[in-house]
Amino acid sequence: MTQAEIGLIGLGTMGAALALNIAEKGHRIAVWNRTGSVTTEFHATAGALAANVVPTQTLAELVQAIREPRAIILMVPAGQAVDDQIAALRPLMGKDDLIIDAGNANFHDTQRRSAEAEAAGVPFVGMGVSGGEEGARHGPAIMGGGPKAAWDRVAPVMEAISAKYQGIPCATWMGPAGAGHFVKTVHNGIEYADMQMIAEVYGIMRDGLGLDAQAIAGVFESWNQGPLRSYLVEISGKVARAVDPDSGAAMLDVILDSAGQKGTGRWTAIEAQHLGTPVPVIEAAVGARNVSSRLAERKAGEARFGAGPQKVDGLTQTDLEQALMAGKILCYAQGFTMLAAASETFGWGVPLPEAAKVWREGCIIRSDMLGDMAEALTQDDKRNLIFAPAFAAHLEKTHNALRRVVAAAALGGHAAPALSAGLAWFDAMRTARGTANMIQAQRDFFGAHGFERVDGGAGKHGPWAM
Amino acid sequence: MTQAEIGLIGLGTMGAALALNIAEKGHRIAVWNRTGSVTTEFHATAGALAANVVPTQTLAELVQAIREPRAIILMVPAGQAVDDQIAALRPLMGKDDLIIDAGNANFHDTQRRSAEAEAAGVPFVGMGVSGGEEGARHGPAIMGGGPKAAWDRVAPVMEAISAKYQGIPCATWMGPAGAGHFVKTVHNGIEYADMQMIAEVYGIMRDGLGLDAQAIAGVFESWNQGPLRSYLVEISGKVARAVDPDSGAAMLDVILDSAGQKGTGRWTAIEAQHLGTPVPVIEAAVGARNVSSRLAERKAGEARFGAGPQKVDGLTQTDLEQALMAGKILCYAQGFTMLAAASETFGWGVPLPEAAKVWREGCIIRSDMLGDMAEALTQDDKRNLIFAPAFAAHLEKTHNALRRVVAAAALGGHAAPALSAGLAWFDAMRTARGTANMIQAQRDFFGAHGFERVDGGAGKHGPWAM
Repeated sequence: MTQAEIGLIGLGTMGAALALNIAEKGHRIAVWNRTGSVTTEFHATAGALAANVVPTQTLAELVQAIREPRAIILMVPAGQAVDDQIAALRPLMGKDDLIIDAGNANFHDTQRRSAEAEAAGVPFVGMGVSGGEEGARHGPAIMGGGPKAAWDRVAPVMEAISAKYQGIPCATWMGPAGAGHFVKTVHNGIEYADMQMIAEVYGIMRDGLGLDAQAIAGVFESWNQGPLRSYLVEISGKVARAVDPDSGAAMLDVILDSAGQKGTGRWTAIEAQHLGTPVPVIEAAVGARNVSSRLAERKAGEARFGAGPQKVDGLTQTDLEQALMAGKILCYAQGFTMLAAASETFGWGVPLPEAAKVWREGCIIRSDMLGDMAEALTQDDKRNLIFAPAFAAHLEKTHNALRRVVAAAALGGHAAPALSAGLAWFDAMRTARGTANMIQAQRDFFGAHGFERVDGGAGKHGPWAM
Repeated sequence: MTQAEIGLIGLGTMGAALALNIAEKGHRIAVWNRTGSVTTEFHATAGALAANVVPTQTLAELVQAIREPRAIILMVPAGQAVDDQIAALRPLMGKDDLIIDAGNANFHDTQRRSAEAEAAGVPFVGMGVSGGEEGARHGPAIMGGGPKAAWDRVAPVMEAISAKYQGIPCATWMGPAGAGHFVKTVHNGIEYADMQMIAEVYGIMRDGLGLDAQAIAGVFESWNQGPLRSYLVEISGKVARAVDPDSGAAMLDVILDSAGQKGTGRWTAIEAQHLGTPVPVIEAAVGARNVSSRLAERKAGEARFGAGPQKVDGLTQTDLEQALMAGKILCYAQGFTMLAAASETFGWGVPLPEAAKVWREGCIIRSDMLGDMAEALTQDDKRNLIFAPAFAAHLEKTHNALRRVVAAAALGGHAAPALSAGLAWFDAMRTARGTANMIQAQRDFFGAHGFERVDGGAGKHGPWAM
């Protein structure tokens, strides 16, 4: 029997989809799952693709089924399961055999596993895969990290199975150990923020403008024909359009307003704090999900403090469109700044334009705007995106609408934490003389921390009257 | 020679002040510093207090100078220096001898050191000390964590040297290992937020109302006679009042608007993310400090996007006072919620009213309001403070002013990230029907995450048109 080109462990939703994708692209793949019957079932239901799938029932059998030097993808739950799987697999593999963790790892774990692999003289790649089950099956965005030579060995397969943007594969090496999973982490943080800002303008349309779900669907559908064109705006229109077959009500109106999270947005917020690079729009989005889950408290809050969000006057759908546009640019500017900071801190040399390009298709935040961002970052990958000519022009046109929306939300009782955080960050970024002089004065007063002077003078402490 | 009651290692600014405080309260203290001449100098300049100070030149001498069972306070830089000092000291001490880390430790380190001490069968206490040099010398707020029996041994000394609020010592055991330093961490996060919100209303007075520093001083001075009465509002008046002896200009106007940080506010934001308890006002404050340090970018921003913050119309000083009041309540509500979450997660049983009480005097965030918070938390220590009758009434009276201020800031280009974040959190907390249904719909669309229904029905996935 012909040996497989590559192997995969873990035939859950994502693993199975990825394996079928690989087989479909003409790459023979050997698969193994902890529960053997899952493997048998997977092979039996793979249809025509079964010819490219080699089911195996032991790890040793899996390893033997793959041609040398081997490459095996792990698609098991992030955390201890990955370490356990590596520990079980390594002794069966050769020195040149590659393990690829394609799960949702925290990049710190990927860095540790990479260091362990390097110490043992064996190759290891951590790879972020975005796009959900549908993406994994038909074309995800893939962000690789690890030794470049190891990545290059599997790049042809990864490019083949990845999403394509105008024919260009969305599968790219982002740098050494941890860089791939880190880029995925930033992606997920931006995803949280994008979704939260959409939810905020949705709320203002629903409660402030009094639009029903069908009307709101029409608004998202029209926005998806303009500069906001993106997967998330597209599906917002679709979910707003959908009707509950049981009750005949709009689906949006039967879904509970309590959002879950798997923690990856939280990682972005935590790493941004460690790096000292603010991502306030992402932080606001993570916080909003947490608050949303406190249903009983929110009901008590409305009972205690009055009747929730109010109708707003004088706000147009164009205001909301432009506010969302501005918020989105600000959020991405923060995300890329964070990525640049991490790249510098860890010495990764992440190609920022490539990160923007790899997100253009296949992943949840895919949008036309990312192409322009890639272009802007190619011009100057150190620059805060708000200063890139194309985006500065966008912001110039839209930031006043963002102001009107944030002000109307504040006055009308609409929670808009992400849009507000974006605006506050933008305003801080466009204020040459800020207010931190007050903070420095206070710190010097109570802690003798000292301060710099605007005139460059020598007196670094105040003549405070204690 | 009479043996000392207690020992102290590290005669830097804080350590020296604490040692003099202890000596002054009549407790004989043995001191040691890595550089011996510092110890000699400290003793030589201690004046009348020198009689209560035993200078020592070796660790062994220090240990022998203290009566058994011993207690030695470490006041060395947080981090590796603490571990090194413990490693050098432990072999010289007996099984019942206590080491107290009074530095600015991350509570995770305190938990680790406590576990190591427990494994070795020796006592260890981690103790947060707040109030800067002045507080350490004349009365800090002290938050202890570790074995209760160990704390009880040193409690009389700690209570003697601590600040007093209406005669009550601000020195309290907060729970087992790590709890003391954690309470200090939350304190510091709130300190960041309090300072940032003051800076924001200062900015609106300066740029929006066109007040000069002397006028602004008058406003803070008058606020300090009302419900905002607090150390930070008091010193804000003082720093605004101060004049630069060199130039004759207001001190506030010669200080650079670029704020430093020592990282402890950041810890609060990170731990809140780990706990899943949003502290958006604190996050905004930490972010604002980071942005403030990007001077060149901010200048470029003003050059590119126009003339910074504008005059605002129709906003009164009372609006600003009430907005600050509302923001402060919201921030403390978030902080105590976080503390409650940590206490539950780690099984500490932190007495929340005691945390509020210990902050009433000696520390940077001391204020009259904390007395009312202690009272409210005594009634119900699980309750979000916004629902405590006294604070709900305050919020009812002030939240509309907060809305006006946030709206005016948004329209006028004044960065007000902390006040905005407070309002957005409050509005989310008072909206029974939020907007996370949109997020859940999107997550189900692209990831089949499922959702709950408002009608409790069984259909957990949408009939989405892919």
